[in-house]
Amino acid sequence: MVRTILVLGAGKSTSYLLDYFLKKANEENIHLKIGDLRPENIPDEFSRHSNCTVFTLDIFNEADRKKAVSEASIVVSMLPASLHINVAHDCIEFNKHLITASYISNELKALDDKVKEKGLVFMNEIGLDPGIDHMSAMEVIDRIRDAGGKMLLFESFTGGLVAPESDTNLWHYKFTWNPRNVVLAGQGGAAKFIQEGTYKYIPYQKLFRRTEFMDVEGYGTFEAYANRDSLKYREAYGLQDALTLFRGTMRRVGFSKAWQMFVVLGMTDDSYSIENSEGMSYREFVNLFLPYSPTDSVELKMRHYLKIDQDDIMWGKLLDLNIFDDSKKIPLKNASPAQMLQYILEDSWTLKEDEKDMIVMYHKFGYELNGEKKQIDANMVVIGENRRYTAMSKTVGLPVAIATLKILNGEITTPGVQIPISKEVYEPILSELRTQGIEFKEYQVPYLGYNPDSVAS
Amino acid sequence: MVRTILVLGAGKSTSYLLDYFLKKANEENIHLKIGDLRPENIPDEFSRHSNCTVFTLDIFNEADRKKAVSEASIVVSMLPASLHINVAHDCIEFNKHLITASYISNELKALDDKVKEKGLVFMNEIGLDPGIDHMSAMEVIDRIRDAGGKMLLFESFTGGLVAPESDTNLWHYKFTWNPRNVVLAGQGGAAKFIQEGTYKYIPYQKLFRRTEFMDVEGYGTFEAYANRDSLKYREAYGLQDALTLFRGTMRRVGFSKAWQMFVVLGMTDDSYSIENSEGMSYREFVNLFLPYSPTDSVELKMRHYLKIDQDDIMWGKLLDLNIFDDSKKIPLKNASPAQMLQYILEDSWTLKEDEKDMIVMYHKFGYELNGEKKQIDANMVVIGENRRYTAMSKTVGLPVAIATLKILNGEITTPGVQIPISKEVYEPILSELRTQGIEFKEYQVPYLGYNPDSVAS
Repeated sequence: MVRTILVLGAGKSTSYLLDYFLKKANEENIHLKIGDLRPENIPDEFSRHSNCTVFTLDIFNEADRKKAVSEASIVVSMLPASLHINVAHDCIEFNKHLITASYISNELKALDDKVKEKGLVFMNEIGLDPGIDHMSAMEVIDRIRDAGGKMLLFESFTGGLVAPESDTNLWHYKFTWNPRNVVLAGQGGAAKFIQEGTYKYIPYQKLFRRTEFMDVEGYGTFEAYANRDSLKYREAYGLQDALTLFRGTMRRVGFSKAWQMFVVLGMTDDSYSIENSEGMSYREFVNLFLPYSPTDSVELKMRHYLKIDQDDIMWGKLLDLNIFDDSKKIPLKNASPAQMLQYILEDSWTLKEDEKDMIVMYHKFGYELNGEKKQIDANMVVIGENRRYTAMSKTVGLPVAIATLKILNGEITTPGVQIPISKEVYEPILSELRTQGIEFKEYQVPYLGYNPDSVAS
Repeated sequence: MVRTILVLGAGKSTSYLLDYFLKKANEENIHLKIGDLRPENIPDEFSRHSNCTVFTLDIFNEADRKKAVSEASIVVSMLPASLHINVAHDCIEFNKHLITASYISNELKALDDKVKEKGLVFMNEIGLDPGIDHMSAMEVIDRIRDAGGKMLLFESFTGGLVAPESDTNLWHYKFTWNPRNVVLAGQGGAAKFIQEGTYKYIPYQKLFRRTEFMDVEGYGTFEAYANRDSLKYREAYGLQDALTLFRGTMRRVGFSKAWQMFVVLGMTDDSYSIENSEGMSYREFVNLFLPYSPTDSVELKMRHYLKIDQDDIMWGKLLDLNIFDDSKKIPLKNASPAQMLQYILEDSWTLKEDEKDMIVMYHKFGYELNGEKKQIDANMVVIGENRRYTAMSKTVGLPVAIATLKILNGEITTPGVQIPISKEVYEPILSELRTQGIEFKEYQVPYLGYNPDSVAS
């Protein structure tokens, strides 16, 4: 009998996801149904495919939504995270498994008992980050524990970057995902983590100046700034006793120090609207954040305010973005500084049709085994094919797709509202990801931690 | 017939207010009733006074509150600003005038029609700042306009500081009002103002590094950092066409640059709780915000992180607060960084019994008259008597008291929910304040503005 996979919401992250299902369609006896508010945006190759139906679906139309869910064998929601909950209730009503790549909301978590009662699998956080990070981390952590080791340190970093062959600007960065999230990164509270048993807090105003560095063989040096909450998965991963827990976002070296210029100027603020933003030039925008002068140039005021020396590459990075250009205008009405900055950055940092993105993930596992301190570093690099088939959409879409099929085929069965941290889930998925070129390299390295001689602090 | 003045809430800002009413009690035929949740905190000299009754009042007890209001001739609310609205409804019901020193809330503003209909005066923002700032500014602005002048520039600064004779620390600062407001000052959005017709925005992370300086004859030099919204009273003051509008908070020179250390470290953040805050030493608190090291001292990490040279007075300011002391503990549970910092600061910055505070206010009025650009600077200094009779409580309490009596006596009659910006209100009040030693000195100075030669920017 043909099984129907219902995919709700087919944004730009879904190319690999949809491809995967259609490639498997005959072999697995699958029919793919894609419900989207604007199905006209879905490429013809999908809508014309004999194993695929594309239809218009307004997720707030309860009758249509329930009908679609009730007719499906399994449901994949690629909708914005806040909309999953509606779908989740329908899935419980009609006994359907549900897969999402989003963080579990409290509302969704609250359905856990009902989901278990019905024997359903609601798999979440199974994209890249969250997703591949969970699975690849737990695989190593479980292996260390199975061998009798005790975890001392866990650090994990992910970056959505531009591939070396498409890296054409001084920032070594282009947008490969939601630009708004990049502009707002780090806001909303201090970053919190544990280092050698000590809590540490970094406020937003210092976040981009407290990076750490790491090398990836064949790809050079990267840097990472701290994520807001490095302790989020402490219990889930069973790391309550680890001395060091740190999660971060990777960039090419020098990005963060340059980004700090925007932070200090106040250009990343999204909490208020700029007066008369519509039609403002890039130069006028910059001048909003600099002291008034009837005579000094915006350039000199900027150099003085940010203490940028004549020979400092920071200056080149600013020029790279044309931010002193008085002829380039921002067309946004009642825009916040962050929205205006995003507009300026998109002008320079948008991938061209044939340019490629790159995903990098880096884990450090420090542990003690037989009285010895050891460390495994593991990293993964994925390069995209072009602007549509990005490494980002591959690393988000494939884990979702693989999990969906394995749940549909009864290979993953433990019920509940969950994330992919159990061996039953991560082992088969990571194994198949490897066949798709998504894999980690592991290195046994000397354990350093941050206090190698156990000096009392 | 005896008139009853009902004062709700008798906090520490009310000494001068209550004294004023009692001194006038016989002459004005007044009986003072003070309703407070904890009347035991009200000094005996008031409760024993023959013209005064002190009673227990829970403002959330509707029956008691309505009874008290209905029996009064006029109502003064010195309650926390959020509680005025309950009293305001009762005042409308029983036809009573109402006086508060707080900012008008939207809820209160919405009662304007009803208040006018009943011919009542609801006078708000009639303390120091807001209060004396409104009245003293409008007196000069109206005078300039009456003479045919056109306002070009208005800047206004207020500071609650320590008097020179009690200024005993390197910060030249002690708490003389709510310490929490001082620690949180500047947070919640960028500061916005207009300079020579250009909007300017300063983010929190630069706020304390963009001060301007001003001299007060006999008191030396002060600095001021920008308030969040300098445009708040633009319409109320009729300054829609002024080229420069700026409001700020005054400190002694050097305070803001030193305060920036706390901002950069993240110690003023009130948005999250520190793990295990209870019992933490001052030194441990500081170390939360510094990079980890098994060997380097907190002192050296701090010097390096904030780039404090050996001979920099910033270092002395930190030592002044004992922040590297490992024996001093913070007793607060689940405290935010801001709450913990406040605790440390109060340890050093609390006024002693016989120490005096100081209020400074400084206005600049730039204008054009008969084709000439001119400027008036006006400033006021008030020194407190001791820790109880502070300059702060005098400058907050007396305008409230004077306004209350003038409304009661029918000298101020224009009805509505209002602030003291009309001549009918500010003239008699400022005149009486002068007899109490609260007065401005005015100086005709050369007009500078920020673009004296009208260079096109």
